[in-house]
Amino acid sequence: MTTTTPYPPDPQAPHNELPGRIMAREMAEQPAVLRRILTRGAPAIRRVAQEIAARAPRFVLLTARGTSDNAALYAKYLLEIRLGLPCGLTSMSTITAYGARPDLTDVLVITVSQSGGSPDLVASTKAAREAGAITLAVTNNPDSPLAGVSEYHLDMMAGPERALPATKTYTASLLTLYLFVEGLRGGDGAAAEGLPDHAERLLARQDEVRALAARYRFAERMVITSRGYGYPTAKEAALKLMETSYIPALAYSGADLLHGPLAMVDNVSPVIAVVTDGQGGEALRPVLDRLRGRGADLVVIGPRRQVEQASAGFVLPTEDVPEEIQPILEILPLQLLAHEVTIARGQDPDAPRALAKVTETR
Amino acid sequence: MTTTTPYPPDPQAPHNELPGRIMAREMAEQPAVLRRILTRGAPAIRRVAQEIAARAPRFVLLTARGTSDNAALYAKYLLEIRLGLPCGLTSMSTITAYGARPDLTDVLVITVSQSGGSPDLVASTKAAREAGAITLAVTNNPDSPLAGVSEYHLDMMAGPERALPATKTYTASLLTLYLFVEGLRGGDGAAAEGLPDHAERLLARQDEVRALAARYRFAERMVITSRGYGYPTAKEAALKLMETSYIPALAYSGADLLHGPLAMVDNVSPVIAVVTDGQGGEALRPVLDRLRGRGADLVVIGPRRQVEQASAGFVLPTEDVPEEIQPILEILPLQLLAHEVTIARGQDPDAPRALAKVTETR
Repeated sequence: MTTTTPYPPDPQAPHNELPGRIMAREMAEQPAVLRRILTRGAPAIRRVAQEIAARAPRFVLLTARGTSDNAALYAKYLLEIRLGLPCGLTSMSTITAYGARPDLTDVLVITVSQSGGSPDLVASTKAAREAGAITLAVTNNPDSPLAGVSEYHLDMMAGPERALPATKTYTASLLTLYLFVEGLRGGDGAAAEGLPDHAERLLARQDEVRALAARYRFAERMVITSRGYGYPTAKEAALKLMETSYIPALAYSGADLLHGPLAMVDNVSPVIAVVTDGQGGEALRPVLDRLRGRGADLVVIGPRRQVEQASAGFVLPTEDVPEEIQPILEILPLQLLAHEVTIARGQDPDAPRALAKVTETR
Repeated sequence: MTTTTPYPPDPQAPHNELPGRIMAREMAEQPAVLRRILTRGAPAIRRVAQEIAARAPRFVLLTARGTSDNAALYAKYLLEIRLGLPCGLTSMSTITAYGARPDLTDVLVITVSQSGGSPDLVASTKAAREAGAITLAVTNNPDSPLAGVSEYHLDMMAGPERALPATKTYTASLLTLYLFVEGLRGGDGAAAEGLPDHAERLLARQDEVRALAARYRFAERMVITSRGYGYPTAKEAALKLMETSYIPALAYSGADLLHGPLAMVDNVSPVIAVVTDGQGGEALRPVLDRLRGRGADLVVIGPRRQVEQASAGFVLPTEDVPEEIQPILEILPLQLLAHEVTIARGQDPDAPRALAKVTETR
């Protein structure tokens, strides 16, 4: 069921002399990737969106794993809030292990995968198409098997990804999915135009992130919380921290945090809150009050006024950035943080233990 | 947005003389609760299922938080595999924070909640009904506001739940949802008849669990994995361990574990695998091979032959228990484990820090 292509080829080889160099290079490429999607990619995305809109899907199922699953969750928020389309995330084993064949007439199935090569994604998308679904693949490889079995394909145009922790393909997926959903509703996605410049300025603030990283050098665990559009960011930040630094990082929606896991938060479990500037951030506010009341070490990634009330933080631009596209920027300081914390702990973000670049789950 | 009713009334009060007494009593009630649902509850569940089946829903949305969210995930597997109905789990903030009003014609919305009192669940179910959905509430309180706003209601008949960590209402929700899904497909749920006796025998094996608990007394983190029907069990076990013992417990589907978090697993992160006897367990096997290959400390909850290949484990009966109802038994040793580990660490499972019995998220 599972085979893996070892990468880097020899796990016994000495670590990089510049740890995290590959990941750092790809993080730095993000402004250029976002610009490429907005200029060269957008027309094709809009065309596909118009064709799919004409077929009026009634439900959307999103299929993905790992980082792409967090991008899919972002798309779920967009589709539900901006289009009023009910959505679900696929439990893939129902198809691949149990052979379920649901009736998918009127259903749009969106599969997100950097490589487009994971056999279970290919099999489940193929089965969905046979079951009557409109299938759309979002990949970083138009020649991939996943693109081949899907009726429609969107290229995330991120260029080859070599680092094991996915960074540029995450933000590329988000922007591609945003433009697609805007296209479905007849919009042009003009609100995203400022993103590449903002991303460039954010990525230049590495010193601020390094100061935050010092805080987590000896952390044994972390909690990351958000609500609404920021929740996929919290999940992706947790995944990034875990796969690079191995710190167990638990992501919760602010509401779920109060339903149990709050017991785990105290002065030894630092909390990172991703606060969007908008209704999601508003809904998170009482959770932040509760965390402050418990004396939690609270770092806020968000608007200035929220950062100022926290133990520390990283201020995000929000003035000309609507809430629904803030996630494309929000994750950037958290990618940098995962990179810096890992280096501070004497590890190499480019050489996570046991990971393969294409994970072949079946 | 968030208010809480303190429970126990005074957090400064000395701990129980018998730590975990309330949780232990409710765990022990489970065979009787399951028996009650099978005898007194089943006819009403079948009636509701028949009425809803006649309306032929095309899509199901499940809404819940915390422990109930894991029960909802179990129902998602049942609905997809046994009925071929595409499902999604609701992102509640899209309704309550962002005011999304999707068209829910032909959609069945199932809301699961022990108390039936959480304002966001009530508001989102009310909004779903106004948007055209068939609404069904599964609660432990027929007089609750949630039961009131829903078109249909199923009583989980677990009796008042006093412990903060939910146990009997979890297994009661699973059985209620199982009988409901069987009812939708015209079945009678006869396969579940042996569950109360099995549950009784499992709960009597506390000594075996105590031996396992010793293993985790000093654990700083844990990973719990499964696939298919067992995945909700892995998530619920992680929640239970965290809210009682505060050990960060990360639940992953076996496939997702290979897409990143595997880097975190080594000889200091013990792994618990929930192995169902069936296709889900089969699909998990290569993940277990991989874990064994990494020298992970692997404890298996599952069939004898899988337990024998692991570092340790707890054997579950599977002979006359079809895979789709194994989750109702699987969680029992894991509830006991959370209880025992917490006591072994000198804490009280009845007094988790910061938790309230009715969590009022809005």
